[in-house]
Amino acid sequence: MTAAGFAISDEDADWAAHIFKAVAAMSPDSAGVSRPALSATETKVLDFLDTQAAEAGLETWRDAGQNSVYAMPGQRDAPRYVLTGSHVDSVPQGGNYDGLAGVVASMMCLRAALRQGLSFPLPVHAIAMRAEESAWFGPCYIASKVLTGSLAEDEATARHKGDGRSLLDHLADVGVAAEPLRAKTPLADLSRIASYLELHIEQGPLLAERNLPAAAVSGIRGNLRFRDIVVSGEAGHSGAVPRAYRRDPVMAMADLLNRLDESWSTIVQTGGDLVVTAGMLGTDPASHALSRIPDKVSFSLDIRSQDLQTLTGMRDLLETEMDDIARRRKVSFATGPAITTAPALMAPEIIAGLKDAMSALGMDPMAMPSGGGHDAAVFANAGVPSGMVFVRNRNGSHNPDEAMEIDDLVAGARIMLQYLTTPRQ
Amino acid sequence: MTAAGFAISDEDADWAAHIFKAVAAMSPDSAGVSRPALSATETKVLDFLDTQAAEAGLETWRDAGQNSVYAMPGQRDAPRYVLTGSHVDSVPQGGNYDGLAGVVASMMCLRAALRQGLSFPLPVHAIAMRAEESAWFGPCYIASKVLTGSLAEDEATARHKGDGRSLLDHLADVGVAAEPLRAKTPLADLSRIASYLELHIEQGPLLAERNLPAAAVSGIRGNLRFRDIVVSGEAGHSGAVPRAYRRDPVMAMADLLNRLDESWSTIVQTGGDLVVTAGMLGTDPASHALSRIPDKVSFSLDIRSQDLQTLTGMRDLLETEMDDIARRRKVSFATGPAITTAPALMAPEIIAGLKDAMSALGMDPMAMPSGGGHDAAVFANAGVPSGMVFVRNRNGSHNPDEAMEIDDLVAGARIMLQYLTTPRQ
Repeated sequence: MTAAGFAISDEDADWAAHIFKAVAAMSPDSAGVSRPALSATETKVLDFLDTQAAEAGLETWRDAGQNSVYAMPGQRDAPRYVLTGSHVDSVPQGGNYDGLAGVVASMMCLRAALRQGLSFPLPVHAIAMRAEESAWFGPCYIASKVLTGSLAEDEATARHKGDGRSLLDHLADVGVAAEPLRAKTPLADLSRIASYLELHIEQGPLLAERNLPAAAVSGIRGNLRFRDIVVSGEAGHSGAVPRAYRRDPVMAMADLLNRLDESWSTIVQTGGDLVVTAGMLGTDPASHALSRIPDKVSFSLDIRSQDLQTLTGMRDLLETEMDDIARRRKVSFATGPAITTAPALMAPEIIAGLKDAMSALGMDPMAMPSGGGHDAAVFANAGVPSGMVFVRNRNGSHNPDEAMEIDDLVAGARIMLQYLTTPRQ
Repeated sequence: MTAAGFAISDEDADWAAHIFKAVAAMSPDSAGVSRPALSATETKVLDFLDTQAAEAGLETWRDAGQNSVYAMPGQRDAPRYVLTGSHVDSVPQGGNYDGLAGVVASMMCLRAALRQGLSFPLPVHAIAMRAEESAWFGPCYIASKVLTGSLAEDEATARHKGDGRSLLDHLADVGVAAEPLRAKTPLADLSRIASYLELHIEQGPLLAERNLPAAAVSGIRGNLRFRDIVVSGEAGHSGAVPRAYRRDPVMAMADLLNRLDESWSTIVQTGGDLVVTAGMLGTDPASHALSRIPDKVSFSLDIRSQDLQTLTGMRDLLETEMDDIARRRKVSFATGPAITTAPALMAPEIIAGLKDAMSALGMDPMAMPSGGGHDAAVFANAGVPSGMVFVRNRNGSHNPDEAMEIDDLVAGARIMLQYLTTPRQ
């Protein structure tokens, strides 16, 4: 096995840095960058990337979803190909690397391979997708859902947070016809896509903590979410109501969160994959007081796991614990609708291939779960074998402080190029 | 022992009902009643009570604190007397009985005794005090603090929530000179007050739950309060940060509340007196999100006990638990200043006397703690042996739904009259 990954050079790194700088300059916000989904800014970024790809000698075109695609000359019409890329849109006041890093890494692979005469066992199409972020319309992974025919009806009619026009209208603006979307016809010929490979910045601290530049992704966590669980009890004087007569929703919520926390600890200690977050909570500022037992408290819950069984188990546990606490503490829980997303496992042969590539490059062959969702989950759930590479990044994503080093991106792109150039059985 | 308490008749009950109705009509609010401390409304109520007392044949006057006082003819200048009463002011949109019930009960005792020729071993002065509620200036128990010389400097200069003028200015408006207050000179001759006795509606559910009309009060809970404890951790993506790398302030708060709740349960089960309330809590609405581990959460804590040692113990426990949780969960706690009020024990001989009176009237001789603070605590802490009678009341206090039955008030007044007419060693 040759380490073709090393074909990515310092000059490629400078080229990538130049692209990041130029794209950031096209999409400034009061802090960080804003590249709204399906906006003129997004199209302008695609146009710019097209010129960069063309200058590098790549063939460039727009697909039926109006995403930009690049390939080695003559490989556009290959009967089967590996699709690799990510998205170019960002959240408002976001960072420059969430999405764009994966697009640039894919372009680097093609550019380095072309320059050095490397060949791919299967042709590679690099894709720069639109509209991945939920910040603009509500639904996320829009471009990959359009390509795979999996945009739900209520997602297609979701309204833009700014102008209130529907997602279908905005798709029409950039040249994507509504009819096939309504019929859930995939705009891509999925039989031609042998696999999907996406590089993305890590949105958590694991690689930074472990001092590793990049890793393969084992799977994308699914989630079970409740936006607003309301615990109802009975208001009363904080000094005058004895313990036995209380129906205190705050102590009930603390009890529940503590029980979930303990179960979470057990699951992680026994090797399970789980994260639990109550990101929003509060008593009612209009009626709460220092010396008043509140009648209500509300909180959100975001439970994620790579393993569907763990998610199902947590849902059952949540119900059991709420029932028990409601009975013991004489309160009631109203959860509202659960929002669920199934986990997406990455294809085992791609995980293995990426780990082999890391070993060939002298890197630690590590695989880790993805906590955030990605276009790769859409392709995987549409039956396309999918894989991901995470690149070390400090300060999380969706904020102006995203901090990816170009050297780490190069490490990630090397893993991809090594993987893409390795012949498979 | 004769049951003099039964001297309070149905006619006295009608008289009391008439007073409640007339006073409510003088102090309407959009919901319930409002009788602002030191206001013209408050003075108008005192004037009305004066005419009712005078019509009943009682001597009436204003004391140095400009409170109304009533006594049997000829007993105004008694060298020693029992002081009994409560306050006439209310919170905004309050109920009609918090305070006023104790004033009316004291007046009923004098009126019934006078009519039926009962004599008191010690003369009785019934007092209708001003300005007990903290809602208007911040400080509470203003009239009793003025009488006992215990108004603190920062209380004297506290500003009215409406017009911003100082408490001393408002006291001057109703005719109370500022100089002695600044010097902390009691405006009452405390050596003449043999004891203080106050009837008040219960602000909790205990008497209603136990189906008892009234009870003696064993003591007034002191408290340890924190308006705004801030737990600080680190923000992060709800899906992407593994358990081991989290610094989640919400789970830390839930852990702390749960530990306090468990210790509280133990203390109550072993016979201790304690209530614990987190009445206000919340993540920051400006930055919180369903899929974001929050960096901060804040909550209030109101810990009350009749027993100073329990309060001190809870303060130590709180610190120990916060230290432990901060270390384990890599968060920090900032409590801000503690607001403390010492518990006030009611005089054992008065509790015993009230229980004897209840037995003589064929009632269950029960004593229970008071969760809310009362003027009786100020007299007790100024060295005046003090006692209280609680009357059953549904729906708590400080709201328009206070629900005291006149029959229960009569039961409470009977206990007082029985007690006041019983000769002591």
